[in-house]
Amino acid sequence: MAINSHKAPQREAARGGLNHDEFWERRQIVAADLANRKLDAFLVSFSANLRYLSGFTGSNGSLLVLPGRAIFFTDPRYQIQAGQEVSCQVKIAKGPLVEDIAAAIARLRLRRIGYEPARMTCDWLDSLRSKIPARASLEPVNGWIEQLRMIKSPQELERIRRSVETNSRAFEQAVKRMRAGATEKDLAAELEYRMRRLGAEKPAFETIVASGERSALPHAQPTVASLKPGGLVVVDMGAFQDGYASDMTRMLFLGSPGPKVRRTYRAVLEAQAAAIQAVRPGVSTAHVDRQARKVLDSFGLEKAFVHSTGHGLGLEIHEPPRIGKKDKGRLETGMAITIEPGVYLEGFGGIRIEDTVVVTANGCEILTPTSKDLRLV
Amino acid sequence: MAINSHKAPQREAARGGLNHDEFWERRQIVAADLANRKLDAFLVSFSANLRYLSGFTGSNGSLLVLPGRAIFFTDPRYQIQAGQEVSCQVKIAKGPLVEDIAAAIARLRLRRIGYEPARMTCDWLDSLRSKIPARASLEPVNGWIEQLRMIKSPQELERIRRSVETNSRAFEQAVKRMRAGATEKDLAAELEYRMRRLGAEKPAFETIVASGERSALPHAQPTVASLKPGGLVVVDMGAFQDGYASDMTRMLFLGSPGPKVRRTYRAVLEAQAAAIQAVRPGVSTAHVDRQARKVLDSFGLEKAFVHSTGHGLGLEIHEPPRIGKKDKGRLETGMAITIEPGVYLEGFGGIRIEDTVVVTANGCEILTPTSKDLRLV
Repeated sequence: MAINSHKAPQREAARGGLNHDEFWERRQIVAADLANRKLDAFLVSFSANLRYLSGFTGSNGSLLVLPGRAIFFTDPRYQIQAGQEVSCQVKIAKGPLVEDIAAAIARLRLRRIGYEPARMTCDWLDSLRSKIPARASLEPVNGWIEQLRMIKSPQELERIRRSVETNSRAFEQAVKRMRAGATEKDLAAELEYRMRRLGAEKPAFETIVASGERSALPHAQPTVASLKPGGLVVVDMGAFQDGYASDMTRMLFLGSPGPKVRRTYRAVLEAQAAAIQAVRPGVSTAHVDRQARKVLDSFGLEKAFVHSTGHGLGLEIHEPPRIGKKDKGRLETGMAITIEPGVYLEGFGGIRIEDTVVVTANGCEILTPTSKDLRLV
Repeated sequence: MAINSHKAPQREAARGGLNHDEFWERRQIVAADLANRKLDAFLVSFSANLRYLSGFTGSNGSLLVLPGRAIFFTDPRYQIQAGQEVSCQVKIAKGPLVEDIAAAIARLRLRRIGYEPARMTCDWLDSLRSKIPARASLEPVNGWIEQLRMIKSPQELERIRRSVETNSRAFEQAVKRMRAGATEKDLAAELEYRMRRLGAEKPAFETIVASGERSALPHAQPTVASLKPGGLVVVDMGAFQDGYASDMTRMLFLGSPGPKVRRTYRAVLEAQAAAIQAVRPGVSTAHVDRQARKVLDSFGLEKAFVHSTGHGLGLEIHEPPRIGKKDKGRLETGMAITIEPGVYLEGFGGIRIEDTVVVTANGCEILTPTSKDLRLV
């Protein structure tokens, strides 16, 4: 793969971009809040935030949001692409972007410029700081765009819905094709292949296929272990499609499950249902988490549930809000979240069930269409 | 996918890890240079550098290298994994790693601690700085580990070789399966599926399949465009296998190519051969780059070659050295690099040919086994 292009080599157009108006409106919301935050401008470079505010899907860009306007900076490789994807002023930098950004800060006589310290490297900040006029100051601002991104627009929800559908269809296609002797890696490869064939750009994370006792490892990577009769298999998979993530976990069982598997599965299924039942606008995320824990407690399994109940998703696979016992937020209409309680018992295995759901005015909609019966294969 | 684990949920063992001695030796090399650099310790958190010095393959860790010892920090999710992968002292942090790192800096009375400012966020640095004693200072050090990583050990070269072989076999399998009407996305999905089935963890980058005039875009993403008769198709693909990257570009032609395609293909092939011919220890990377340009110049195509001739690869797909006209380095035995000249003609298409090669005592070895004839399909 080539790097270091020193002449505009163009790049393809965006595929299926959102409406330019939507990006403009988002920038307006940011611009309108600048004065409250005592900022003259906000500089965004983190890829998901940049895409959210500009539509740009390339790997190198920055956006300077000012009252009434915005300037987008990128390098010559993305000249054509930025022209197609970005509706505000585009500046093609000949050298490092920070030089052009600093020049704009000087020219526009900006004094207080917000930036994202959780997203930028120390070198980037030092470089920008060394190039701006002495009167200008760079002000750390974290979580601003992430907070806006928590509430999805109808267009965004439509994309998440398509990503979820691709993911569930890929699951069905791959599971139907499973043959005796298949390994965890084989199944993971098939799941990701089917996703791509159905329109995903790529998996939203490294697909988890963990069988037997390894299903007790929440973040297991697929191995060359064969899927053996008499064992649980956890499949945790997600797609990125048109930039938006999906996330689902389902359990397979090879053969006929015994009473312990059935009882534990029922516990997790009831815990998941209880958490979903609690999802509605205004409720605290900790309350949702607690509903899952209460059910598992009644089965004597509370200690086996070692992670939080869920997380937001969208342009990133993990984004705010978190649905955990120590989290402080409240749900709002338009949030897209996962609900995924699980139990992990060393020497036995793990069981997790996960859907992608959207908070609606009256409660929630479960986007994931896949059956939650324990899948016997 | 679950996040925010608040209890040790274990993680699988490393698969096919390198010898612990190799990591110990690398840490010794770093430790032995601390005094020269006027440092008491060096703190490494960037994943590829961390893996190079510790063998750790997880997503959250830091390594503090001191004279005669090293301390590895990670969170409870990676307790079992770190125990298996990491041979030095392992400290499991209950909260953010920076707190335990700062406590170690205080306890060991370290004064000057090197860190990697090109790799760490502003927030991480501020957080660490606020927690260490006033007598301690954090000193920016860039490129140290990257420089060591340029020269591959025999074990590393073996891994790169296996990654290259997987990649080339995946290419053969996928191209043989191509059917009329297949889209760019279909072929890309098939290539990545075959890689995974052959043992790769994942693609080393988003596979490029670009047909017709789109082949003139060096970084094109695959679209739903069908591969049409009478057109060039560029396929640029790489695998990560056991952590190490491969990178290859080959050209397909659907049908029978005309004289312009044949002539341009020959130009690129000769340019690639000339650059490879120049690869040997001691030669400057700019000289290698120049050999490719000279050939293209003789075909009147120098201006159509818009990127550099190649780059190093290993634990990252792009790492030092760069092989470009403005680069200053010299090749050394044990470097693994790509040689990939290309020409891009708007309205006609692009042609690039890329191999992964290793610098040897006498010249170089081309690892990529795939034929460089224009592949007619």
